Amino acid sequence: MAMAGQEATNRQIILKHYVKGMVKELDFELRVSKVLLSLHPGTKDVLVKNIYLSPDPYMRSRMQPMEDPYIDPFSPGEVITGYGVSKVLVSNHPEFKPNDYVVGFTGWEEYSVIKEARTLRKIPQIGLPLSYFLGVLGMPGLTAYAGFHKVALPKPGDQLMVSGAAGAVGQLVGQFGKLAGCYVVGAAGSKEKVKLLKERIGYDDAFNYREETDLKAALRRHLPKKIDIYWENVGGKMLEAVLENINKFGRIPACGMISQYNLEKPEGVSNLFRIVAKSVRMQGFLVFDYEDLYEEFTERVSGLLKDEKLVYFEDVSEGLEKAPRALIDLFEGKNIGKKIVKICDPD
Amino acid sequence: MAMAGQEATNRQIILKHYVKGMVKELDFELRVSKVLLSLHPGTKDVLVKNIYLSPDPYMRSRMQPMEDPYIDPFSPGEVITGYGVSKVLVSNHPEFKPNDYVVGFTGWEEYSVIKEARTLRKIPQIGLPLSYFLGVLGMPGLTAYAGFHKVALPKPGDQLMVSGAAGAVGQLVGQFGKLAGCYVVGAAGSKEKVKLLKERIGYDDAFNYREETDLKAALRRHLPKKIDIYWENVGGKMLEAVLENINKFGRIPACGMISQYNLEKPEGVSNLFRIVAKSVRMQGFLVFDYEDLYEEFTERVSGLLKDEKLVYFEDVSEGLEKAPRALIDLFEGKNIGKKIVKICDPD
Repeated sequence: MAMAGQEATNRQIILKHYVKGMVKELDFELRVSKVLLSLHPGTKDVLVKNIYLSPDPYMRSRMQPMEDPYIDPFSPGEVITGYGVSKVLVSNHPEFKPNDYVVGFTGWEEYSVIKEARTLRKIPQIGLPLSYFLGVLGMPGLTAYAGFHKVALPKPGDQLMVSGAAGAVGQLVGQFGKLAGCYVVGAAGSKEKVKLLKERIGYDDAFNYREETDLKAALRRHLPKKIDIYWENVGGKMLEAVLENINKFGRIPACGMISQYNLEKPEGVSNLFRIVAKSVRMQGFLVFDYEDLYEEFTERVSGLLKDEKLVYFEDVSEGLEKAPRALIDLFEGKNIGKKIVKICDPD
Repeated sequence: MAMAGQEATNRQIILKHYVKGMVKELDFELRVSKVLLSLHPGTKDVLVKNIYLSPDPYMRSRMQPMEDPYIDPFSPGEVITGYGVSKVLVSNHPEFKPNDYVVGFTGWEEYSVIKEARTLRKIPQIGLPLSYFLGVLGMPGLTAYAGFHKVALPKPGDQLMVSGAAGAVGQLVGQFGKLAGCYVVGAAGSKEKVKLLKERIGYDDAFNYREETDLKAALRRHLPKKIDIYWENVGGKMLEAVLENINKFGRIPACGMISQYNLEKPEGVSNLFRIVAKSVRMQGFLVFDYEDLYEEFTERVSGLLKDEKLVYFEDVSEGLEKAPRALIDLFEGKNIGKKIVKICDPD
């Protein structure tokens, strides 16, 4: 392993150009560069070795220029950035020291300098896998936790429908739903995912949306009491079908719309009047809006994991060079559980 | 005038058939029938003479069969019903007596029997015109009051954009906005309405959406600080343009979508991801959800009217036979202020 102070090769995943339509492997390139394993004095920077990377759907929106974006676009020719779990090699920051494991925004590369340790958090040693801090105990976990408890406002007996149910966020929302006393139905894109949802994750029911020609009828069949809460991960035709099956005072926490991210022209939703007719609250949110819940969330969710009241599934790709494919898998629905890219062993 | 106990002719507006696409005068017919000006004993019915009728946009949805409707459709061949102000002729109900003025659901006809006095309220004598109880002090008034205060949750300094701004509800929302310390911009469909909004109703700014080829650019021009609250009366392209101009944590109280009611295929809204990206809350509501606010609303709004802190504009069509045209005017944007049909003098 490379030692602090030496020069090392640094393999990096670069965004070649802005992306139009479906993202593909040719939109990325692997660059091999050199990195000095030391830091300039006088900064508060931290040099880390990256261990796990987190391909997440929101990253697609960073691959194109956008008016009034909620997060800055990537720069073509530069390394992709995203959440990762890393080990500190050199630290100029008082809060971090060598060999600390950290989670935060890092680069899709072997070694990264994190300017002023921005977004980094130290990972507590609580006997749970490091990669969990990119999922159930990280951004997707807080997304599910905050969105479900603070936006959906569940009541026992609510009929909860989750799209993208077998993904990083959806698997958790369904379980939070069961813990809150809801009847929980998931939509996912393969037989295998449906089986996982029903047999392992504890969904009351689930269906493969790709096998349905009439989503509205599918929802009616699986949710005969209709829908009180729709967890929106996908947008487009599923949202339209849900609006035809929603109960009075229905709630739609809008977490994402993954079916739309790679379309040059997003689909139109034409029955929004149902929002008026059924007094529906559709509420978008970003995980960044709920940073103040982080402590409560970590304590509660790590407790549930230790007590085996929450299960969590990961889908790990091995090797930095697999990262572009891993991200594309999300949009093709190939991941089962949270997609993770493992660059190296944690030691 | 007809006396209680006698038979009278009763002119009635009948829905001829279910309507597809744009509603037109030929979808209605005037029928002349007879009515006995007395009631069967043993009921709690009330016989009224109708004075003012209220054509309202929501009525369009009753003119066609609908799955899971929020209000029952009309029956072809039967008299249209809607809000009206009436005078009691004969009452079997202990709460009403002859010569009381009442407001509630009645028929588009000269005389109506109101079964069990359902939905009727007595109009208090507070020195304000009777017709106001179909507008500023009636259903549209409560819609504006409840939707603005309980759904929009305004803060001083909020940038408030109102569509359908010169209509029954919009004119009030703009004024509630000014009273709450908002900056208020209205969109309406004619030069005359824009002038009224700016010079008489107290909007800070207004524009004629029919003169704009690029609604997104128009909104940017009139709301350089973008939009915190969008009062949704119209739907379709205006909603799409607003979503491109909305601020973080924007709120969209969804009151109606009048631009869509006469379309066989409603327009699709394709940028709903903005709801996620900007943490927007879009919340539909119906006036029926807020009946418990009626007393507070009546007291507050009648006080504002008497103190001349609220203005209110009506657009009156004279004669029952004008009622179909008056309703169609709403969808063509021909009314300025609350549309009212006057059938006869109150005496």
